[in-house]
Amino acid sequence: MIKTDILIIGAGPTGLFTVFEAGLLKLKCHLIDALPQPGGQCSEIYPKKPIYDIPGFPEILAGDLTKNLLEQGKQFEPGFTLGERAETIEKQEDGSFIVTTNKGTQHHALVVAIAGGLGSFEPRKPAIEGIADYEDKGVEYIIKDPEFYRDKKVVISGGGDSALDWSIFLTDVASEVTLIHRRNEFRGALDSVEKVRELTLLNKIKLITPAEVKELHGDGKIEAVSVVKDGETTKIDTDHFIPLFGLSPKLGPIGNWGLDIEKNAIKVDNSLNYQTNIPGIFAIGDVNTYPEKLKLILCGFHEATLMCQAAYRIINPGKKYVLKYTTVSGIDGFDGTRKEAPKAVVQAIN
Amino acid sequence: MIKTDILIIGAGPTGLFTVFEAGLLKLKCHLIDALPQPGGQCSEIYPKKPIYDIPGFPEILAGDLTKNLLEQGKQFEPGFTLGERAETIEKQEDGSFIVTTNKGTQHHALVVAIAGGLGSFEPRKPAIEGIADYEDKGVEYIIKDPEFYRDKKVVISGGGDSALDWSIFLTDVASEVTLIHRRNEFRGALDSVEKVRELTLLNKIKLITPAEVKELHGDGKIEAVSVVKDGETTKIDTDHFIPLFGLSPKLGPIGNWGLDIEKNAIKVDNSLNYQTNIPGIFAIGDVNTYPEKLKLILCGFHEATLMCQAAYRIINPGKKYVLKYTTVSGIDGFDGTRKEAPKAVVQAIN
Ligand SMILES: Cc1cc2nc3c(=O)[nH]c(=O)nc-3n(C[C@H](O)[C@H](O)[C@H](O)COP(=O)(O)OP(=O)(O)OC[C@H]3O[C@@H](n4cnc5c(N)ncnc54)[C@H](O)[C@@H]3O)c2cc1C
Ligand SMILES: Cc1cc2nc3c(=O)[nH]c(=O)nc-3n(C[C@H](O)[C@H](O)[C@H](O)COP(=O)(O)OP(=O)(O)OC[C@H]3O[C@@H](n4cnc5c(N)ncnc54)[C@H](O)[C@@H]3O)c2cc1C
Repeated sequence: MIKTDILIIGAGPTGLFTVFEAGLLKLKCHLIDALPQPGGQCSEIYPKKPIYDIPGFPEILAGDLTKNLLEQGKQFEPGFTLGERAETIEKQEDGSFIVTTNKGTQHHALVVAIAGGLGSFEPRKPAIEGIADYEDKGVEYIIKDPEFYRDKKVVISGGGDSALDWSIFLTDVASEVTLIHRRNEFRGALDSVEKVRELTLLNKIKLITPAEVKELHGDGKIEAVSVVKDGETTKIDTDHFIPLFGLSPKLGPIGNWGLDIEKNAIKVDNSLNYQTNIPGIFAIGDVNTYPEKLKLILCGFHEATLMCQAAYRIINPGKKYVLKYTTVSGIDGFDGTRKEAPKAVVQAIN
Repeated sequence: MIKTDILIIGAGPTGLFTVFEAGLLKLKCHLIDALPQPGGQCSEIYPKKPIYDIPGFPEILAGDLTKNLLEQGKQFEPGFTLGERAETIEKQEDGSFIVTTNKGTQHHALVVAIAGGLGSFEPRKPAIEGIADYEDKGVEYIIKDPEFYRDKKVVISGGGDSALDWSIFLTDVASEVTLIHRRNEFRGALDSVEKVRELTLLNKIKLITPAEVKELHGDGKIEAVSVVKDGETTKIDTDHFIPLFGLSPKLGPIGNWGLDIEKNAIKVDNSLNYQTNIPGIFAIGDVNTYPEKLKLILCGFHEATLMCQAAYRIINPGKKYVLKYTTVSGIDGFDGTRKEAPKAVVQAIN
């Protein structure tokens, strides 16, 4: 059982900044995310695109924002359960919660902060008969660890950035990379498209377009796929079939936790600290709703900050917290580091 | 009469970010600040100190945050009335407001956003008899434009960063710089203290410590000051006497505008959009108060953003605004510039 002060569901920008604000209050955080990497929408949907409305950044790539937020929180040593979806929550007699993922990992905390954005990202799956039987037996919809494909044959299908970028990346890892897309046209960053073109000319990527994978073969695990192009079917031997058709967020199991839900979002009390109808459970960032709510990153930061104050009072009943400026008090990391502003000197001149 | 959509009182971080958020909604802003420069507390009190809790910045100097916020908003061409204090407000029959400064400058707007922080920064004045008579006649408490002192004799008094830094700066501008402080010890950044020591040795700064200015002389304008050191009085000829004893914020005239005030702050409706008890007047950032309020920069950013949506509805009655992501829609500046994310290409590979 993983134990923490604040259990955060969702490692998007809101969840990541919560780690920092909680750390200032000496509260420890653990994050669960269905994705294999932190960053939420910023890293899953648009890591290479600039955001213009993060205060103080006239422009910042979504991927860099994620990196910065991880850096900002790292001295508070957050724990991560990645690639797993928070599935159930049980309130204990002492008011604490146990949250269990789809893989059975259990987490215990006094405060739960749902920072689940638009929901947990679930892959869009192609409609191929029997594909479910091969899941985790050679069929993967998300690449968690590229090393898994070392010296293996892989067939990737898809026409967007993920399909392009992973095809490129895996040429250095896998023994054979085939990229299949149902159109000739790809939709992605210019340099990715050009790189794939180049690797195709070098025979490092085998490109088949316009084509579709129609059948899967193998006994207990994938051994080959049937590809249809111009009405003709070819069988391609492969160890893995990786359809990268994008992920779409689904509120999913959180919808059944007894929380007040309105238009796929969790109602919170914005006049105080973004608590839900269940005391001890808060909802912050894109996942919540209240009058005048804006689904913006900068709003999640504010909500996380106010929520942490409430969490402090739940976790330290009776203790009074006095807000301190980071500039004035510095930051003591849980890892023993200390950051502080250079002090003004008091010195005689003469 | 200066006309604008949103009149912002206070050019601290909250006011500056409002310019940007309003600009996204095609609303134009004008800012009034009692200080000669934008940045509020960040530029007046701790420009060279790092802040650690601005989301996405593991560390940023307060002065750099100010610079970035100015840069982020500049395509929306904000107007500035600096070095003047907003003194009175009058509601017009059509619901708009006229705000007048202590220097008589008039501003007209449909929406007023008070982002006044802890109040307008007012200089701490030394208790020297008759000093008020010399104000703006050789006695200044704030240096607005150093060129004003070109080839003049100046006497600065004070023992902190402002006194040190301006003494250093003015050695290149004024014909004579005298620095007087009532102790031998100065309190400031190490490099400023050392620079003053060096300039003193080079006879570019005349340093008199421990000493105090006790009397002012001159007919209609400052001509000399009397300095007491070790019980002995010396008269020093000078064109200017500049006591730099720091500025302290005072809510000041805003306190008499008929707004609900609680503990020196303006009560707002945080369950909606930070409007005060007077429709059309909002209060954002350090200047407001509500249950669970935190006087943090990141909270001001959120408050400003929600407030701008409400301002939009007041200024464009009946028009509906649909939130757009900056990443997706880009930014059209009032100055004709356009920022936008590189578009994904759609391109055939073969
Ligand atoms: C193309 C695009 C452009 C955008 N541009 C801007 C912009 O310019 N400015 C701006 O402010 N915003 C922009 N946004 C919106 C911004 O990305 C979101 O506001 C932000 O990501 C919300 O952060 P969050 O942390 O609340 O949620 P998210 O980023 O959505 O992260 C939530 C995380 O929670 C996880 N999760 C949810 N439920 C579970 C569960 N049950 N178990 C495990 N994990 C779970 C999800 O997998 C996800 O990783 C844009 C969004 C898109 C798609
Ligand atoms: C030493 C120090 C360290 C700090 N460290 C941190 C930190 O680490 N993190 C953090 O988040 N915050 C910190 N703060 C607080 C932070 O600076 C404030 O939250 C922030 O400046 C508030 O911004 P604002 O725009 O609301 O108001 P302010 O920055 O106070 O600006 C308000 C402006 O309004 C002007 N004004 C007011 N009334 C009038 C009037 N009638 N007419 C004209 N002008 C007027 C004032 O002159 C001022 O320039 C710190 C503050 C100090 C002093």
